[in-house]
Amino acid sequence: MKKLMLFLFLIPGFALAQTHEENIKKIFDEELRNGHTYSNLKYLCKEIGNRLSGSPEAAAAVEYTRQLMVSYGFDTVYLQPVMVPHWVRGGKDVVKIVNSEKLGSLELKSLALGNTIGTGPSGLVAEVIEVSGLEQLKQIGDQVKDKIVFFNGAMDPTQINTFDAYSGAVPQRGSGASEAARYGAKAVLVRSMSNRIDDIPHTGNQRYNPDLPKIPALAISTQAAELLSKSLKDQKNLRIYVESHGEMLENVLSYNVIGEIRGTEKPEEIIAVGGHLDSWDVGEGAHDDGSGCLQAVEVLRLYKKLGLKPKRTIRAVMWMNEENGLRGGTEYARVAKEKGEKHIAAIESDSGGFLPIGFSSTGTDAQRTKFQSWKSYFLPYQLWNFEMDGGGADIGPLKDQGPLLIGLEPDSQKYFNFHHTEADVFEAVDQSELELGAAAMTALVYLLEQEGMD
Amino acid sequence: MKKLMLFLFLIPGFALAQTHEENIKKIFDEELRNGHTYSNLKYLCKEIGNRLSGSPEAAAAVEYTRQLMVSYGFDTVYLQPVMVPHWVRGGKDVVKIVNSEKLGSLELKSLALGNTIGTGPSGLVAEVIEVSGLEQLKQIGDQVKDKIVFFNGAMDPTQINTFDAYSGAVPQRGSGASEAARYGAKAVLVRSMSNRIDDIPHTGNQRYNPDLPKIPALAISTQAAELLSKSLKDQKNLRIYVESHGEMLENVLSYNVIGEIRGTEKPEEIIAVGGHLDSWDVGEGAHDDGSGCLQAVEVLRLYKKLGLKPKRTIRAVMWMNEENGLRGGTEYARVAKEKGEKHIAAIESDSGGFLPIGFSSTGTDAQRTKFQSWKSYFLPYQLWNFEMDGGGADIGPLKDQGPLLIGLEPDSQKYFNFHHTEADVFEAVDQSELELGAAAMTALVYLLEQEGMD
Repeated sequence: MKKLMLFLFLIPGFALAQTHEENIKKIFDEELRNGHTYSNLKYLCKEIGNRLSGSPEAAAAVEYTRQLMVSYGFDTVYLQPVMVPHWVRGGKDVVKIVNSEKLGSLELKSLALGNTIGTGPSGLVAEVIEVSGLEQLKQIGDQVKDKIVFFNGAMDPTQINTFDAYSGAVPQRGSGASEAARYGAKAVLVRSMSNRIDDIPHTGNQRYNPDLPKIPALAISTQAAELLSKSLKDQKNLRIYVESHGEMLENVLSYNVIGEIRGTEKPEEIIAVGGHLDSWDVGEGAHDDGSGCLQAVEVLRLYKKLGLKPKRTIRAVMWMNEENGLRGGTEYARVAKEKGEKHIAAIESDSGGFLPIGFSSTGTDAQRTKFQSWKSYFLPYQLWNFEMDGGGADIGPLKDQGPLLIGLEPDSQKYFNFHHTEADVFEAVDQSELELGAAAMTALVYLLEQEGMD
Repeated sequence: MKKLMLFLFLIPGFALAQTHEENIKKIFDEELRNGHTYSNLKYLCKEIGNRLSGSPEAAAAVEYTRQLMVSYGFDTVYLQPVMVPHWVRGGKDVVKIVNSEKLGSLELKSLALGNTIGTGPSGLVAEVIEVSGLEQLKQIGDQVKDKIVFFNGAMDPTQINTFDAYSGAVPQRGSGASEAARYGAKAVLVRSMSNRIDDIPHTGNQRYNPDLPKIPALAISTQAAELLSKSLKDQKNLRIYVESHGEMLENVLSYNVIGEIRGTEKPEEIIAVGGHLDSWDVGEGAHDDGSGCLQAVEVLRLYKKLGLKPKRTIRAVMWMNEENGLRGGTEYARVAKEKGEKHIAAIESDSGGFLPIGFSSTGTDAQRTKFQSWKSYFLPYQLWNFEMDGGGADIGPLKDQGPLLIGLEPDSQKYFNFHHTEADVFEAVDQSELELGAAAMTALVYLLEQEGMD
């Protein structure tokens, strides 16, 4: 057997695969024994907290991750300026049924959607009308005039990948306000994007159509949505009081935060790995997306700690403003093009710090085939799914520059229990799951910098 | 294309596979839309709570699951008598450093191990000596005389399957007390079986060697273990006060709870699916193993709800006394043999209500090959791992009767954050993850009753 092993080592491919396996094991072992991802995430969540674009907390997060990467001794750490929108919630959101014959006056847990205007301090009152989504709104059209439209389309619980269920339900949140305004509605309420029936409202992005009037838009908890729907069956003329205070202020100068270790053989070929540093203005942005940011920092830290020298340049990027503008991702791609940089791959972790089950990708057949051929390196760590299409919002703008776009794919069952809510806090993240994701990203970066994408 | 489909339907194997796929989809959809598993688990956890063998709560759990299965209209529901040990904790456990020069008197969070004797009401005080495990204890032997032995072997954080890390560390808990007593120790403290550093002590089973003196044995939290170890480096002569009140009472009559739907074609061939109904006496036994029990009940409920008629007999079993005696599993196998029953397969869910990633198995090559050939039915539901060896403690005694033994395998990252602690409560279980496990078990039972194991 020993002789056979010696012989096998003379075959270059075999020896290389052995080295790769060994280095990947070192990466996982080091992360699971002595990883920094979890404690760094704790700092971001507990010392800084949520960090909507343009907020002081977002600025603090920029400075924290910059200093962190400097402290780890990466070759270069720098800030990339980007102007971001600055939306503020402006006060407490209130949604209240005012004339229920059964329940009297009853408050429903709510949270204004991002980028929305407020009602003014005295709020508004109107009759409410329920629709299942944008399609039904179109059918009933003018019936919603002067009313509050209640979008009650639920996420499909039979979708095994909950992001598919989210995609199915989220259009009512993204454009429901403008579409209802088209028919003269006064405000909209949207059922929270969650499979759970609980009392936690989920905020999220909303885009006004510039050709239509702007009206206030708020999410209500799934429990509130169930109650409201039931109450409307009993009493058609329910009236609701809505008060919200959202305001879009002037754009603010902010930054993408970038750290780099230069490649030893082909430094001009770049592999970017990152997450987005901004979050919504509730909770602590732990899963969305503090996890992705600090996993990306960890990739480069593990290189330094283990003394690995990348053949190609590896870069950790904290993109700014994924949640309500994507300005950071857009600017990053613009600058890369302007500088003539060559990204061979970009990896984003923005699906939570949950158990990693694989990587999704978008690219040419050749790129994807090469990437998928590495699956066997990950099976010992229980990452098995390399077939999914995907990538990430912030790396999307790089697409026309030709890199393979890759998304870390954690199991999705619990993501929408926390997404854009008060509940997305550090305690909702499991240390081992977060670390496995960081190690998996590092292992993939390792294979990319070693083997390239030709 | 339509013609080709029609043609394909004429091939019996293809049509059958189609039917199987469709029925399995019905099972998953029904469970994810309208499952009862989660609400039933809530009842068991919140209305009954923890249920150590011999306790009034264990008796209540027997009656609850019996009535539940009766209410669902299974063909037969019955209790199988079994005598079980009745250990009681007897009072509050105390572990206190009494003479630390730095810390003075300091209590360490502790929990007596199951089946242990107490210290007596006035406790005991002795010097403490740390060992890394049974091996090191053997090396130092008589040095532990009249002392408290502190077993501080940690679970290996680099094991991706945390049950492997548990297996590596748990012998010090299982037989540490007797082995230390062999050399004249007065008591033992054992580092809790967890990868997390926190202040939650984990109890668990402990077996006295009948040829050696019995001494008290308590778990301390990992945080306490780290502190104690550090303190011992500073001060060798640390003394500790230990007080515990454990007592083994007379055996008690209890029951396995069994529900059955009789097969339409080969009723003599039995497929058992279950979990264990007893738990430790802290927390609510939510993951361990309320989840497994109510998933097993759900398997048969889904058959009734969907109008599926099993070809072979399917049986849900709530085994009693897995935690500190395995009397239920042992009796179940004895009775099956006595009655000449023929189990073709037995499935146990006893690794928590977490995200299911596959099934482990123990059986002949032919049995395992057939079982593994069904993997493609499960991939759409993200169960991918069918290669693991395994099964379950309660179904182990059936082994010599020849069934394929199968374990539901959830991802293991978080199991030992909760195992045998106050933290193993209903809120620690995710609804979708629990339901995916119940649906996966039902799908596997379906394939087994349809296809058999020949």
